[in-house]
This record gives sequence, C-alpha cells and structure tokens, in this order.
Amino acid sequence: MPERVFGHIPGYPEDSRFESRAELSEAGVHRPLIAGISGSEREGADSIVLSGGYEDDEDLGDEVVYTGHGGRDAESGKQVAHQRLTRGNLALAHSGIEGLPVRVIRGANLDSQYAPRSGYRYDGLYMVDDYWQESGRSGFRVWRYRLIKLPSIPTRVDMVSEGPGAYSTQRRETTVQRLVRDTAQARQIKALYDYQCQMCGTRLEGLAGPYVEAAHIRPLGAPHNGPDTADNILCLCPNHHVLFDHGGVGIGEDLSLVGADGRLTVHPRHRIDEGHLLYRREHYLD
Amino acid sequence: MPERVFGHIPGYPEDSRFESRAELSEAGVHRPLIAGISGSEREGADSIVLSGGYEDDEDLGDEVVYTGHGGRDAESGKQVAHQRLTRGNLALAHSGIEGLPVRVIRGANLDSQYAPRSGYRYDGLYMVDDYWQESGRSGFRVWRYRLIKLPSIPTRVDMVSEGPGAYSTQRRETTVQRLVRDTAQARQIKALYDYQCQMCGTRLEGLAGPYVEAAHIRPLGAPHNGPDTADNILCLCPNHHVLFDHGGVGIGEDLSLVGADGRLTVHPRHRIDEGHLLYRREHYLD
Repeated sequence: MPERVFGHIPGYPEDSRFESRAELSEAGVHRPLIAGISGSEREGADSIVLSGGYEDDEDLGDEVVYTGHGGRDAESGKQVAHQRLTRGNLALAHSGIEGLPVRVIRGANLDSQYAPRSGYRYDGLYMVDDYWQESGRSGFRVWRYRLIKLPSIPTRVDMVSEGPGAYSTQRRETTVQRLVRDTAQARQIKALYDYQCQMCGTRLEGLAGPYVEAAHIRPLGAPHNGPDTADNILCLCPNHHVLFDHGGVGIGEDLSLVGADGRLTVHPRHRIDEGHLLYRREHYLD
Repeated sequence: MPERVFGHIPGYPEDSRFESRAELSEAGVHRPLIAGISGSEREGADSIVLSGGYEDDEDLGDEVVYTGHGGRDAESGKQVAHQRLTRGNLALAHSGIEGLPVRVIRGANLDSQYAPRSGYRYDGLYMVDDYWQESGRSGFRVWRYRLIKLPSIPTRVDMVSEGPGAYSTQRRETTVQRLVRDTAQARQIKALYDYQCQMCGTRLEGLAGPYVEAAHIRPLGAPHNGPDTADNILCLCPNHHVLFDHGGVGIGEDLSLVGADGRLTVHPRHRIDEGHLLYRREHYLD
C-alpha cells in the first residue's frame, strides 16, 4: 500500500484528464475504484470524486457541498438509514480539522455545469471549510461537507518539498494559522505533544479529532526569516497562539512564561533553539 | 470631527489620485495633514500614507513593512530615541488585533517601484498581519508592521452596508474567523461582553488590546443561511470557537454546555434566538 499523499500528485497537474476510475487509481490521484472518498479515519481524506452519486450534492465550481457515504441500499441506491461519522465521513471531517488539502475530481456523470464531457478531470485542491449533518431529501440524516477551492497559485509561494512521495504544502503564512496547511515538521511537533498546548496543557477535542496549532517562534518570511524546523515550532492552543502573537504572553530565558503564570512544557525529544526564543522576546514583548 | 471610517471611502475607489495631502484629507481618505498614521488608540488606525519617511520601510506592492512614528528629531529627521507603542503606533497594532482594514496611500516621494509619479494614489485596503519592534538602522528601537493587501474583489462577496458613514465589510466567511472583518453587529456583541468568552469568561489581553471572536450560531452562507444579527452571534475565545465549530462543545436548550461543564453566560441585553440554537444542535453535534 503506497503512502497516502495529501496535495498534488507529481505529474498530474490541475485539469489532468482520465478515462476511467481505473486510470485515476493507477495515477494515484484517487486510489479507490468505487468509493467516492479516499482516506482513513486516522490520516484524513486525500481525495474525493464528484460523480453525481447523491441527490443533495451542490456544485458551484470553487465551492462544493458534498454528501458523505453510507446508509444507502446497495440495490436501489436509496438512503435507507442514517449516515454515521465513521470511515470516509470521519476521514473527510478529519481533513477539515487538520487543514489537510483534498484533491477533487469531477466525473462526467455529475449533474453540474462543471462536469467534464467525458471521463474524469482533476480539479485541484480544496479545503474542508465546514461539515455538519442534516436530514437529506430521504428523511435520513447525512453528513455534509463544504469544500472551498484553494488558490491554484499560492499568494506567497512557499512550496515545501518533503522528499519523494511526500506532499508539497502551500503555506499561506500571511493569512491565518487555522488556514495553514502544516508542514511535516509542524505535524511531528503536534503529534509529539499529543495535541496538548505547551503553555496550558489544553487539548481541544472535536468530533473528528483533536485540534492544536503550530506556532513559529521566530516568524517565517521576511524580515524575520525564521526556519520551518522543529527547534522553531511550538505546539499551542489557539488562545495561547493569539496571546503569543500579540505580545500577551512570552517565554523567558528559563522557559517561564512572561505575562502569565507557569512554564513552557518541553518534551525531552524537542530541542528548542535559544536564539529563536531570544529573537521572539526582543521583538514581540514590549 | 467626522466619524472614523474603516474601509473604502465612497466615491474614492482603489487607484484614485490626489494632488496633495490637503486633497487626501478633504476626501476623507487620509485625514491628518502631516501624520503618516490616521487613527486613535481606542478605535484603531484607518489609513496610512507611505511617503518615504523612514529608511527602514520596505515595499513589495501587496506586502509592505512599515515603520511606526515617534523618536525622531524634528530638525534632522533622525531617529534619536526609542519608539513607543502609543498613539498612531498603538492604533495600527490595534487594527491588527481587531482585524480592521487599513487604507494605504502611496506618495511620489516613496522610494519604491510602486510609488506614483506624482502626488498620491489610494492603493486599497490592507490588513495588519504582524507587528513587532526592532532596532532600526539608527540603533534605536522602532515598531514595525507588516501589511498585506486584501483582495480587491472579495472571493465571496458579502458587502454589508451599515448605513451612511459606516464602512462596508468584506466578510470572507469561507476562510477563517481571525481574518474576518467583523460587522457592526459582531463588534457590538464583543463590546457588550467586554471581550470575555461566553463559555469560559476568558479575556485574552495583547499589547494592543483585548482579543475575542464573534461566532455565528447558525452559520452564514448557503446552505445554512444564518443571519448576521446579534441574536445569532456569540462572543467566544478562540479555543471555544474551535470547539463550537467542530462539535466539541454545544449549547443545550437550557443554555448548559454540551460536552463541557458550565453554562453559556448571556448578557441581559443580548437576546439569543432559540431557533438558531436548535439549528446548531441538530447540525453540529453528533
């Protein structure tokens, strides 16, 4: 089983065409031959195929409302039971809470002006902006997802190559952390702390998994030019991330918090660079 | 003194030209005749003029690093003291923490390829993405601001008119709350609760003021189509906003929290619509 790739598949840029699901699968753009959602509960979903399966789907091009799977009668295709937030449905929600990009493929069977005339077309990366459940036209509850297209050309290109097989991240550091697709380094730090805030220990738990943010000590981008390396990344809850960015809390030389009680928790396997901490103190605390 | 306007000034679209600071002031695009920053500590900054005042400024067009004011010798213009986070400097930081849009005007004196050939040009709205202090070339500490241009054409137009004299808000609900320019309704709710979270009472305090988020109970936009009215808005800290959006915490019929201890604090002057709460419960909790 090849590693799951989030993001573009090398060699298959946006607008690539495929004649069949088999060809899509072979290319690695959407691996499953039948399922509309590719992904796992633990890793998240990496791609979906829009092909007119559900009557409730809506396609506005750059914005799609997509219906999860499950609860349909195999013979008639009718919704005969509630959908649950498991398997592909949970995977897609997980991509939402983790900010993972999802490849969207449209098929000719899709009832939409954006459907290709024949076969399948790769339409680029989308983010899962929102997910919720509702009673579909059948009366049974279904899970729904709003997907929003990510810019084809990043506003500020920071393509981070993570070696063969890994995905390229469009890091839009100039916008807002919650929109940021984390790099491998950031994901590792979040996992190392098991999604607990290094300042307060908080672990936020949503339906689709835990949520925490990666904060750079010395910011990325000019003029700070901090590196995207583990020794420059903290694992913070959104509240402490806001405080950290706005000078409401800082980190002293002895790792005690400045402007708050307590001390930064540091995992034995997490070496934090003192120079970056100094940079932060000098530039972001009054 | 006319009311301070955040956002575009009606009648002066992007790329409007002005011969002088007096003309800029008369139009209301940048009121002060000499100061580079227009704003107040309490309200935030509504506009800045880039005209080559500081040697440390950087202009990349859609991204600007701007230096605050103060500490310069009136005669020589040289930096002779540290800058403080007060007056215009605090106003600009306040716009950052509040997410207020700042009008940017470039003057012909600016040492940049983006400077107009003569007079002044209004170059649209920017957000204050980051602010920090550093030792300028003079050796004295200055406050610096990174401003990022907001899209001229909103990706999803939700121009909210707030009546004469008020500003139009580009609400980009499809991105992330921290980037959202609040509407008047949201700002009123935040003020009513004095920036305290209705779920936990937390009030985050940065150098430039308090920070809290406005959360819509029944989400805006299709297919939810919740209204942007006070009875559909909560004042939440970022942590509870994340939990609320990801089904980690909900609000029961009796306003007790679902998935957490405690109860929603509701101000006597804040009527919350029960229908919106019901919608939220039915769609966002499993």
